[in-house]
Amino acid sequence: MIKAGIFGATGYTGSELVRILYHHPKVEISTLSSKRHNNQVYNSVFENFNKISEMKCEEEDLESLSELLDVVFLALPNGKALELLTDSILKNVKVIDLSGDFRLKNIDVYEEWYKIKHKNEALIDRATYGLSEWKRSQIRNSRLISNPGCYPTCALLSLLPLIKEGILEESSIIIDAKSGVSGAGRSLNLTTHFSECNESIKAYGVKSHRHTPEIEQELNRFTKNEISVTFTPHLLPMNRGILCTCYGVLKKQINYDEIKKIYEEYYKHEFFIRLTKEDVFPETKWVKGSNYCDIGFTVDKRSNKIIIIGAIDNLIKGAAGQAIQNMNIMFNLKENMGLDSIPIFPI
Amino acid sequence: MIKAGIFGATGYTGSELVRILYHHPKVEISTLSSKRHNNQVYNSVFENFNKISEMKCEEEDLESLSELLDVVFLALPNGKALELLTDSILKNVKVIDLSGDFRLKNIDVYEEWYKIKHKNEALIDRATYGLSEWKRSQIRNSRLISNPGCYPTCALLSLLPLIKEGILEESSIIIDAKSGVSGAGRSLNLTTHFSECNESIKAYGVKSHRHTPEIEQELNRFTKNEISVTFTPHLLPMNRGILCTCYGVLKKQINYDEIKKIYEEYYKHEFFIRLTKEDVFPETKWVKGSNYCDIGFTVDKRSNKIIIIGAIDNLIKGAAGQAIQNMNIMFNLKENMGLDSIPIFPI
Amino acid sequence: MIKAGIFGATGYTGSELVRILYHHPKVEISTLSSKRHNNQVYNSVFENFNKISEMKCEEEDLESLSELLDVVFLALPNGKALELLTDSILKNVKVIDLSGDFRLKNIDVYEEWYKIKHKNEALIDRATYGLSEWKRSQIRNSRLISNPGCYPTCALLSLLPLIKEGILEESSIIIDAKSGVSGAGRSLNLTTHFSECNESIKAYGVKSHRHTPEIEQELNRFTKNEISVTFTPHLLPMNRGILCTCYGVLKKQINYDEIKKIYEEYYKHEFFIRLTKEDVFPETKWVKGSNYCDIGFTVDKRSNKIIIIGAIDNLIKGAAGQAIQNMNIMFNLKENMGLDSIPIFPI
Amino acid sequence: MIKAGIFGATGYTGSELVRILYHHPKVEISTLSSKRHNNQVYNSVFENFNKISEMKCEEEDLESLSELLDVVFLALPNGKALELLTDSILKNVKVIDLSGDFRLKNIDVYEEWYKIKHKNEALIDRATYGLSEWKRSQIRNSRLISNPGCYPTCALLSLLPLIKEGILEESSIIIDAKSGVSGAGRSLNLTTHFSECNESIKAYGVKSHRHTPEIEQELNRFTKNEISVTFTPHLLPMNRGILCTCYGVLKKQINYDEIKKIYEEYYKHEFFIRLTKEDVFPETKWVKGSNYCDIGFTVDKRSNKIIIIGAIDNLIKGAAGQAIQNMNIMFNLKENMGLDSIPIFPI
Repeated sequence: MIKAGIFGATGYTGSELVRILYHHPKVEISTLSSKRHNNQVYNSVFENFNKISEMKCEEEDLESLSELLDVVFLALPNGKALELLTDSILKNVKVIDLSGDFRLKNIDVYEEWYKIKHKNEALIDRATYGLSEWKRSQIRNSRLISNPGCYPTCALLSLLPLIKEGILEESSIIIDAKSGVSGAGRSLNLTTHFSECNESIKAYGVKSHRHTPEIEQELNRFTKNEISVTFTPHLLPMNRGILCTCYGVLKKQINYDEIKKIYEEYYKHEFFIRLTKEDVFPETKWVKGSNYCDIGFTVDKRSNKIIIIGAIDNLIKGAAGQAIQNMNIMFNLKENMGLDSIPIFPI
Repeated sequence: MIKAGIFGATGYTGSELVRILYHHPKVEISTLSSKRHNNQVYNSVFENFNKISEMKCEEEDLESLSELLDVVFLALPNGKALELLTDSILKNVKVIDLSGDFRLKNIDVYEEWYKIKHKNEALIDRATYGLSEWKRSQIRNSRLISNPGCYPTCALLSLLPLIKEGILEESSIIIDAKSGVSGAGRSLNLTTHFSECNESIKAYGVKSHRHTPEIEQELNRFTKNEISVTFTPHLLPMNRGILCTCYGVLKKQINYDEIKKIYEEYYKHEFFIRLTKEDVFPETKWVKGSNYCDIGFTVDKRSNKIIIIGAIDNLIKGAAGQAIQNMNIMFNLKENMGLDSIPIFPI
Repeated sequence: MIKAGIFGATGYTGSELVRILYHHPKVEISTLSSKRHNNQVYNSVFENFNKISEMKCEEEDLESLSELLDVVFLALPNGKALELLTDSILKNVKVIDLSGDFRLKNIDVYEEWYKIKHKNEALIDRATYGLSEWKRSQIRNSRLISNPGCYPTCALLSLLPLIKEGILEESSIIIDAKSGVSGAGRSLNLTTHFSECNESIKAYGVKSHRHTPEIEQELNRFTKNEISVTFTPHLLPMNRGILCTCYGVLKKQINYDEIKKIYEEYYKHEFFIRLTKEDVFPETKWVKGSNYCDIGFTVDKRSNKIIIIGAIDNLIKGAAGQAIQNMNIMFNLKENMGLDSIPIFPI
Repeated sequence: MIKAGIFGATGYTGSELVRILYHHPKVEISTLSSKRHNNQVYNSVFENFNKISEMKCEEEDLESLSELLDVVFLALPNGKALELLTDSILKNVKVIDLSGDFRLKNIDVYEEWYKIKHKNEALIDRATYGLSEWKRSQIRNSRLISNPGCYPTCALLSLLPLIKEGILEESSIIIDAKSGVSGAGRSLNLTTHFSECNESIKAYGVKSHRHTPEIEQELNRFTKNEISVTFTPHLLPMNRGILCTCYGVLKKQINYDEIKKIYEEYYKHEFFIRLTKEDVFPETKWVKGSNYCDIGFTVDKRSNKIIIIGAIDNLIKGAAGQAIQNMNIMFNLKENMGLDSIPIFPI
């Protein structure tokens, strides 16, 4: 059995890691580390684990613990992983970091967008950006995975086939994204106070959301000219789910079937990518509780644009699920092991 | 493998049966029957099954189909099962009926509360009321299970230990129940139109809800005098979950620990019953997506009353999950087989 | 014009006071006091006031300010009003306190339930409990109104006619109450974090909610023997609204029409009380945005109980609206002045 | 007093017309016409009017009724107004039609997008598109107003100043719109069934929504070349509110202050248009319950685009409120008469 430790186990992403790993046939959860809930029984923090797990949260030292574990998931606030991680830890244990600390390869870009001093540049190079479907071989050979952000996961899976094929005007890409509130985590904040966000919608982080440079970095691997995307996230009154409505100007005339063929080529062997039928568009309810990413699209001939819509469960494919998918790849397990749950509807 | 057929597969309960049975290690879904969606691919009705099942809905004849199946789940509107079921069908196949048709043993009570003529009295006696934790041995030996209603499941599991122990004034029982909207099914109705039920709460079926006689029938098995409960269901703006807040006058002075001991005696071996700790009360979010029933209680000495609160996922423990639990019992399988998913939070 | 000051103007109740008073034909808002948002423009805290009011929040000294005002609304956390209020302030200005500080006449009961030392016993006696429909003449002659809690307003208006008429077994009263989240205010709290309370229901404050002794105090004015009610509030995933489902055992046989007559006698001249038709029960959506209290009831002959259901908008009739209603009474204005808005549906 | 009749009074738009007109100082509601609820008391359909109005719904003949009225609001399904309206009716009464029947000036475009045969071409020319802020003088002199759609109202108010100034690349305009469910009306539909749309988001009407040609028609009044916009509406799990996130490529370098100046020039005298401060963006919660349209914007220099965000209450500024604003203009009343309610928050 793979011995796993979860740091930041009492956040929403942490608790999804616990829930999914708990039934993973090849994993044994060894440690639940939490600073805020040190010494508390886990099921007193998350009552859904009542009678299921009697584990206790403990504030652990990653360095010493790393010798006892095979894999560590870091579900900590931004700026923590870069402080904690060292070469010697990585010698002991494989690490999957779910924060933004190692996603951006350019340290200046990190510091500009995160307003955090990065003191661990050496490890940035060793980190593999863990977009599972696009980085499988690198992930397999890496000891440090930087798990993608929720929005980038959805946007990149939706856009990359067309970007790689060079079909879109590079300066034209707009990602209008919508997210449920759980993406903002469990820390208290006026924005996520019930009466403030229920029954309303707003854009936030306009021009300033940290996932912008992450999306650009990964798109730019496949473009000739460096591109800037326009990324506008919105906060919706629902618990889970991300929908990305992506727009791009087509470089040349191309019809639905040709586009469809491109997506099928890239994704036909991908367990977790589902293309919707023509004129059917993804809805977040159809992926909730699962690791799927649904993608649909249409060509708007009148305006010579393409609209691509992607949907994921932000806490699963957008966080804990993809992290476990990456773990499966790293340990040469079946990629969907422990991750094949069917989306639950209505819930 | 147990060959299962699902009638009414395109309702919410039907779709939960499909979802859970799909991963049940001993079951193979042979038939999805639906009148409304005859000939449609199931995943075009419920897109969550995209790439998972390519089965088609067909309107099936139960009689002829019964020879090919081991178990049939009937998730049909009230009044349908009593028309369809026959002795010869029951000879061929085990049946779990999720409607109200065979729950009430007194045919007059059925006709009064359901306003439906019952033409199949003979089968009423053969039907076992499938409250799994309380009827296990009868279920095991029955070929026709009448699966309990969602409210009765929650109310009875919460109340039965105290009723059986004779602790409550029999005339004093009040069940103030709250349900999410999915309990009302997928048929269109002004009451469940989004803008009509969102952001509001109302009582409904006051004094007239069909689950009232069902709760009374099962409580009265353990009371000397026939009792009438006051049952008031409320409709809440959420998808899933039932909370029953039950009130009763105590016949004698009894403290929390003594009550706790009673519940523990009845439920200590029950996988799906979870007692909350003292001063912690069930919340529907902690059971969503699972077959658990959480129960908590407190003694209000000032008013000499006890308050017992139960919580279930109405579509699982209150419908599809308990039906599969009953199937497991009928086929001598481990009772939680296919049903051990951990509640998902937040979702 | 009546010069009004609002302390605690940046809470939800405070902002409703501002909104309603802003259009009150006889009132001019002179001061918006806020500690947290000192020196901020009010419409930068509540953008709904953009282009409507350019007033600034200031942290004000009540004592000195009181000379300039005719009425002060205190919408502060519990324990603040009892510190601030003095005889000399009351000489200068009429005060409507929306906290719990002066609701309970017995100081020991206050300290037990609020866990706050009450240092201002002298003023408790001078305070009038401002349940408008039941205390009109005392309110008119008072300089200090203690505005009722949201739950007590709804429960008392629903129960008082029957209590006064002596129709209910005094020991039998149960109030199962349900509230939207805005009742918990704007202060951050895990309980009211969106992902924690959305899509779930829970009971809270079981046996310990501070509105319990308040309800009992006001009911006991009309009962021979001191009674204890069982009061169980629940938190619902919606912004606004309170529904109280009240249960009581009938002392004698009495039918719907006789009960109806009682309610009509008490409430026929009350602008803000609306009785629903037979078999129609209040829903919070029908009172949202208004100062109405809807009341409906039914006699459950089978169990010899009566069920009374009341609904209010917790921030209006349960807080700001009733406070302004009381102000109207104190200043001999038409009682519904500024308060006659029609409930908005759907919203 | 202006005698007003409302046809389609039992839809959501109809009921908002009734609610707002009820308190309008210069209007008397003479007739509530409803086919579905013929002969029912209005407050039995909408209980929020209990004790407020005792009017009855009646199915009325518009022709004969028109002689008795000064203004008629038609809040009927598409295709009805074009059947009902005649020259002689318009001689008798001013008409404000809230359907799509007279919005599109090109009858072929109407028939293509609405799939309805238009049999009343003559009246199309007489109808004034009632975007109040942009058509004031035509509205004043018209007897037939075609009230704009909810999305077009929000999108046009947000975009028109920049279109008129010729600042945007005409082929680049994208409108990513989000709406609450009430916009879909009160008719039953699987899409608006609570459990189907709660806790999920989807795009709908992609490339086919009828508001597309309406937006284009009104934008094209100010463009040299005919433009096609990309308009993607989304359905959100909330009752009310529309947010339009509009994107356009800038023709030339222009900064925030210059854009701001443009908006201020167009809108400085507009009571119902509110510009947000820099870096503050509209949220639907800040306009709910009011006739305001909030507009904010930012220049994204990195991608040379502008993002303009508009927010309205879809049932008020997007329907009933703007209709009454148009009535005020037609009857030379103060434009905000009866419409000055402050947005309610939180609700």
